[in-house]
Formats: sequence, C-alpha cells, structure tokens
Amino acid sequence: MKPYAKLTKEERNEEYAALRAQYDAFCAKGLKLNMARGKPGDEQLALVSGIFDLMIRPENYISDGTDVRNYGELRGMPAAHRLFAEILDCKPEQIFVGGNSSLQLMYDLVSKGYTHGLKNSPRPWCREEKLRWLCPAPGYDRHFKITESFGFELITIPMTEDGPDMDTVEKYVKDPSVKGIWCVPKYSNPDGIIYSDETIRRFAALRPAAPDFALVWDNAYAVHEFEGDYVPFPDILSLCEAEGNADMVYEFASTSKITMPGGGVAVLAASEANLDYLCSLIGVQIISYDKINQQRHALFLKDKAHTLELMKKHAAVIGKRFKVVLDTLDREIAPLEIATWNRPTGGYFVSLFAMPGTAKRTHQLLKDAGVTLTGAGATYPYGKDPADSNLRIAPSYPPVDELQQAMNAMCLCLRMAALEQLGL
Amino acid sequence: MKPYAKLTKEERNEEYAALRAQYDAFCAKGLKLNMARGKPGDEQLALVSGIFDLMIRPENYISDGTDVRNYGELRGMPAAHRLFAEILDCKPEQIFVGGNSSLQLMYDLVSKGYTHGLKNSPRPWCREEKLRWLCPAPGYDRHFKITESFGFELITIPMTEDGPDMDTVEKYVKDPSVKGIWCVPKYSNPDGIIYSDETIRRFAALRPAAPDFALVWDNAYAVHEFEGDYVPFPDILSLCEAEGNADMVYEFASTSKITMPGGGVAVLAASEANLDYLCSLIGVQIISYDKINQQRHALFLKDKAHTLELMKKHAAVIGKRFKVVLDTLDREIAPLEIATWNRPTGGYFVSLFAMPGTAKRTHQLLKDAGVTLTGAGATYPYGKDPADSNLRIAPSYPPVDELQQAMNAMCLCLRMAALEQLGL
Repeated sequence: MKPYAKLTKEERNEEYAALRAQYDAFCAKGLKLNMARGKPGDEQLALVSGIFDLMIRPENYISDGTDVRNYGELRGMPAAHRLFAEILDCKPEQIFVGGNSSLQLMYDLVSKGYTHGLKNSPRPWCREEKLRWLCPAPGYDRHFKITESFGFELITIPMTEDGPDMDTVEKYVKDPSVKGIWCVPKYSNPDGIIYSDETIRRFAALRPAAPDFALVWDNAYAVHEFEGDYVPFPDILSLCEAEGNADMVYEFASTSKITMPGGGVAVLAASEANLDYLCSLIGVQIISYDKINQQRHALFLKDKAHTLELMKKHAAVIGKRFKVVLDTLDREIAPLEIATWNRPTGGYFVSLFAMPGTAKRTHQLLKDAGVTLTGAGATYPYGKDPADSNLRIAPSYPPVDELQQAMNAMCLCLRMAALEQLGL
Repeated sequence: MKPYAKLTKEERNEEYAALRAQYDAFCAKGLKLNMARGKPGDEQLALVSGIFDLMIRPENYISDGTDVRNYGELRGMPAAHRLFAEILDCKPEQIFVGGNSSLQLMYDLVSKGYTHGLKNSPRPWCREEKLRWLCPAPGYDRHFKITESFGFELITIPMTEDGPDMDTVEKYVKDPSVKGIWCVPKYSNPDGIIYSDETIRRFAALRPAAPDFALVWDNAYAVHEFEGDYVPFPDILSLCEAEGNADMVYEFASTSKITMPGGGVAVLAASEANLDYLCSLIGVQIISYDKINQQRHALFLKDKAHTLELMKKHAAVIGKRFKVVLDTLDREIAPLEIATWNRPTGGYFVSLFAMPGTAKRTHQLLKDAGVTLTGAGATYPYGKDPADSNLRIAPSYPPVDELQQAMNAMCLCLRMAALEQLGL
C-alpha cells in the first residue's frame, strides 16, 4: 500500500478493478447498514431500563411538596433544576426544564426572537431588514436548518482545533444584522473538538453590535466522554456575566444520550433576567412541560456523580465502536493518504475529510451498497461543503459486527472515489 | 327570600348588613380555597396510577416493531394514531401526536402561520398588514392570549345556546384579514355548550375570504361527560372535507383530563395534506415528541370503549362537585334573581352571569375572603367583559367540603355585590 498520489495511471486502474470486484461482492450481500445519526444503540438503552420502575409509589409523585402529575410549574421541577445546575455547573435559578427535546427549545428560542424578539431586541427579528447567523462548520445540520428555515443568511465560520475561528467571529459580530451563533462547545458535532479556554474566554467577551445577539451554547455532550475521565468544562453563564454579557448566552443540554433519545429531558440555562423574559412568552404557549418525566429523571440520575457513573457505562458501549472506526481507517486509509479524520474522546461522531471532490461520490457509492451515512455536505450551511470533502460517521447505533462491515465498505468507497478523482 | 330587585332600599341595607356579618366571619377563618382552574383533583389522579406500571417489561418498549425509546417517528406512534382516531372518529392518517400539551400544539400552529404561513397562506402572517381572529365569548382565556400575543385583533363572537353565533361568524369571515377562530365545540369553555348540528354544519361550510383561514377545533372535552352517557359528536374533519374545506380545520385534543394534566398526550387531527405541510415545518423543530409516553397511553387507555369506562370513573368524582355548585346556586341565588348560570353535563366549568356590573366586585370580595376564582373578564378577549357579568367556576380541584365552603362564600359575595349595585 502506498499513497494513491504516487500511483501511476496503470496502477490506479489495476487497483480500481480490484476494489470494484470487492465492492460488487459487498453490494451483492444486499445489506442495510446505518451510520447516519448519533443514535444510541440497544446496548445503551438497556443501561437505563431501571428508569421505568421509579414512579410507581405515590410518594414519588410529590417533589418538594408539589404533585408532579398536575398542572403548573412552568419552569419545571426544582429537583430537576438542582440536578442540571450541578451537571452544567451553573445555578438552579438559571435552569428551565423542558420536554424531551433540546432542539425544540433551541428552535423555540429562534422562533420567539423572530415573532416577539429576545429580551434586548429593538424589534422582533421578523421586522428586521436582514438577518444573519454564524455557523461554525463543519457543524450540526439541524442547527443550520433552524436558522435557514427562518430566512437567516448563514455565514460559515471555519473550525480550528480550538473551536470556531474567533478572529472571524469577532469580525462578523460587528455587523448588527448578525443575531447569533450556533456552538457545540464540548465534543463539537461532528469534529469532536473541545473549545479551548481561550476560545471560550473570547466568546464570553464578545462585543456584538446587535444588542440581542444570541450565543447558542448547545452543550449536548457535556458529560459524554467515551475515553478517559470526565473533563471539567467552564460555566459559560458565569464567564459571560463576568464580562457584562449575562444576557447574551443561552445554554442547552439534554438527557437524550444519557437516558433515552425519545424520552429524555431537555434543559435551557440562561440568566435569570432572560428566563423571566422567556417565561413571559413561554407561559402563553404551555402550562408546563412533562414534570413527571422530570421527576423520573431526577430520581434516576440523582446527582452529577451518579450521572457520571452511568456515562462510564455508556462509554464502554460506545468506546468499542469508535475503536472499530478508527482502527479500520488507520489500517485501510491512512497509508493511502487520501483522507484525514479526527480522534475524539467524547461525543458521537468521527469527522472525516476525504480527498476534496470525493465526499458526495463516496456517499453515493455507499448508498448504492446499502450503507447509509449522513448526506455529504450536511455539516455545512445549506448542505453545501465547498470542498466536497467532509463526511460524518456516527458509529453508535449499529452492532459492532455490522459497524465493521459498514466501515469496510466505507474504506472501499473512499478508495474508489479517490482513484476516480485522480483519473482512471 | 324574594328577588333583590323588589327589595326597598331599607330592606337592601338590612340584608347587606346581615351578609356583611357572615362575610366577615368567613374572612376571619383565613381559608385558602381555589376554584380558578379546570384542574383535576387528587381523587381523579388516583384513578390512573396504574399507568406507571406499564412500561417495565422490555416488550412494552416495542410498538408496531419500533423501539419507542429511540429517535424518530415525527408524527408519533401508530398505536397512538389508532387510539385517538377512534376517540375522535377520524382516520389514523389524520393524527399527529405531540407532547403533554395541546395548548403548545395550538400555539405552534399560530406561530408557524406567523413565521412561515399555513399550507394555503399567500404569505407568512407576519407579512400581513392586519391580522384578525374570531373569539367566541365567553371563551377560554388561554386561547385568546395566544392570538393576542401575536398581535391579532381579537373579535368577540357572541355565544348562543347552539354555539357561536354563526350569522356573525359568516359575516366576519368575508374579511380576508380574519385568519381563524377559536372553538371548543363540545362542553365549551366555560359555558358547557355542545355546538348544535346546524352550527357544526355551518362551520364546515364556511367560505372564508382568507385561503388560510384556520378553524381551530379544540375538542378538549371530547369524552368528558360527567352526567349521563357518552354523547357522540360529529367528525369535523370529514364534514369539512365533504364541503371542500378539508384543509380549513385543525382539531386538537389531549389526555390532560383523562390521565394526567402534567403528563398526558396531546393530539392534532388535520387533513393529510395539512399534516404533510406542518410536518415539513415541525421536522425542523423536533425529531419527535415523547413516544414512550405515547406508548404508555396507548397501553393504558387501550381503545375508545376502555377510555369511556375510565371517564365514567372521572364522572363520579367530578359530578358530585358540580352538584355542590349547582345545588348551592339553586338554593342561595336563584330566588334572588341576581344571576343565571348554565347546567352543563360535561366539561370542567360552570359559567355564571352575575348581575351586570358586579363580576369584578364579586371576584374582589372573594379574593379578599381567600377564595380564588378565574379573573372576572378573563373569558372575554383582552380580559374585558363588556357587561362585567361572567364568572367561571371550576369545581374539579377542591375536596367537596372545601368546595361547599367556597360556594357559600361565592353566594355571599354575589349577593353583596348585587345589593351594592342596586344601591345602598
């Protein structure tokens, strides 16, 4: 195996013919394999089945004197405030507990900015001439889609090893039509990058021209190490407050990848002033989210230490899947020098940069072979990767043997696409 | 006891002094009683505690082959579609199952009309010059608040014994800025009126000028009889379809008053074309609502017949509370001819019309005596009852003995306010 760039045309054709035969044999198996979404697998779901036994005794319905089954308590249950404040290292008064989806809370934040304005908005965003939003990329397609659907112009911010390129961020926030930024600060989706202390400091100290600029801090993987111990992470709320930016930041988290993806609990952490303002709008929308499920989670997760114990069990299940991905890429692709990839220690993704111009082709070859991957380009605003290079691998869902087969196919397809690109 | 209108001034003063003494004695007890919200009481919550035992075995997580714990299934679980389609007498394909709040689904419908437009909108509502919404009144304050918060001009539609005054509705929908109407068609909030077949027919046959006019059909009390047997109710979706208005109607329901107020399941029923359109927007907002709770409800409620059996048990608990309210009013107020009230056989409210000009005063007197009632005027747009007459009594939450005390106080206050109004 030598780098593909060093092959002669004849060697490339020979190699391609051999790969093609393997690819055809793979296709003939008619497999259906999925590495598309950061979806926990059955082994992970089995780790939390005890959560269903917890709400059976009448005393479990009462939390701090309130019956969780009835109406009321817009901000959620105090027991959940305490739990998530400890996990996020902020204050219980800064926590709003929602339903089963942090995406919904984020969408609703943007939607309320659009319809009513955020706390410091001069006017609702729908009354602005122009709306722009910063999108560190590669990033999370569902984030980008929210602001795209509200008509924001999406501005790509390059990612560095330390997080979003802060020089570019600081330049763009001088534009008052720039209303916010999507961030996944710990184990970023898809690169698995932990924002550096300096990046975080510069975020907290931003001086945006828009008084209602929203630093959306989607701390989706706050406790989601799969290798090594829990990595403490600065509390963005207090850092922003120290910089006079208390109302700039909205932090989100959820238990979707702690307990259950379809039935977890989502959280918004923000300044008390922001929560007061938002609750004045949310109170028109809902009486409260499902407090029974909040109580179920408070009883099951107990506190941060107990939550981290559970995350160690998730790590054991997920870690071996990431090892399959990385070992296969190291063995099959590294010597060919046709792609690079990150080596995350937490989160749910491996971000792979294929030879420029080959991501879409690789995706198509895989699709034809029965292997589903997140669409090529999905990690960029408008689904358009200018280099046609980035592919997001989500190894959590398939059983290990299926994942190995899918990765074998992926390596075949990366190689074929690279050879095609080099010329046959 | 003779009608207050026939009392001389001297008799009124005598009567008032006697009532005042009783009122002072009541106040001195320092009670805290609440008849403000249609909130189920503890006896009702105890009827459904079996719902928590249902998700303990692994086979319960799988519904029609899908693991309810994981991501996916934006429209909700098929088992829940079937259950609610049977209850609402529509088709499973017309059902979207949400979270724990139908209010949230209604808010989100209006919000999406505002930000993106509904299926047949020429443009998003935020781009319209003027927005108006029809509000049958007395009606539900939380409905009115939603459209008020989006800047709609609220137009009061008088209520008749047969539902909203359809002559007025038909007149207003000729105005293209009128984008919708709030309806609670069965056991209306607060009057407890069941819309007549003729009213329903005329709704289905409306010819609104706005192509995106929304008939919001909040069937909150679809199976909520507390006296007599279940009353079958026409399916508004098929009636609208038959009139060529398939996309005009959005029906809502929830199990908040079937299982649990804080942890039930909410439903939107609409044409398949409307659901396809809405799901294209909702899919940006959330991956799915909590399917575990949907499955829990499908297992617990089973089908319509089984749900109606449960409703009979609720009826036994609630019916005795309504009897307290009506017996007390009949005994204490009827002979005085200072108020009228409805005699509902379902729903959660008694709607009382006090002597014009006395509702606010009655509310204040009660408040000072420690009895909380929904604010006077709340049942009208902008919280302003032009006659200052309507009061909404919600008898479900207090224990029967407390309810009796609260009603005694209410009668005292109604009488005092009436005497003040007649002149002392």
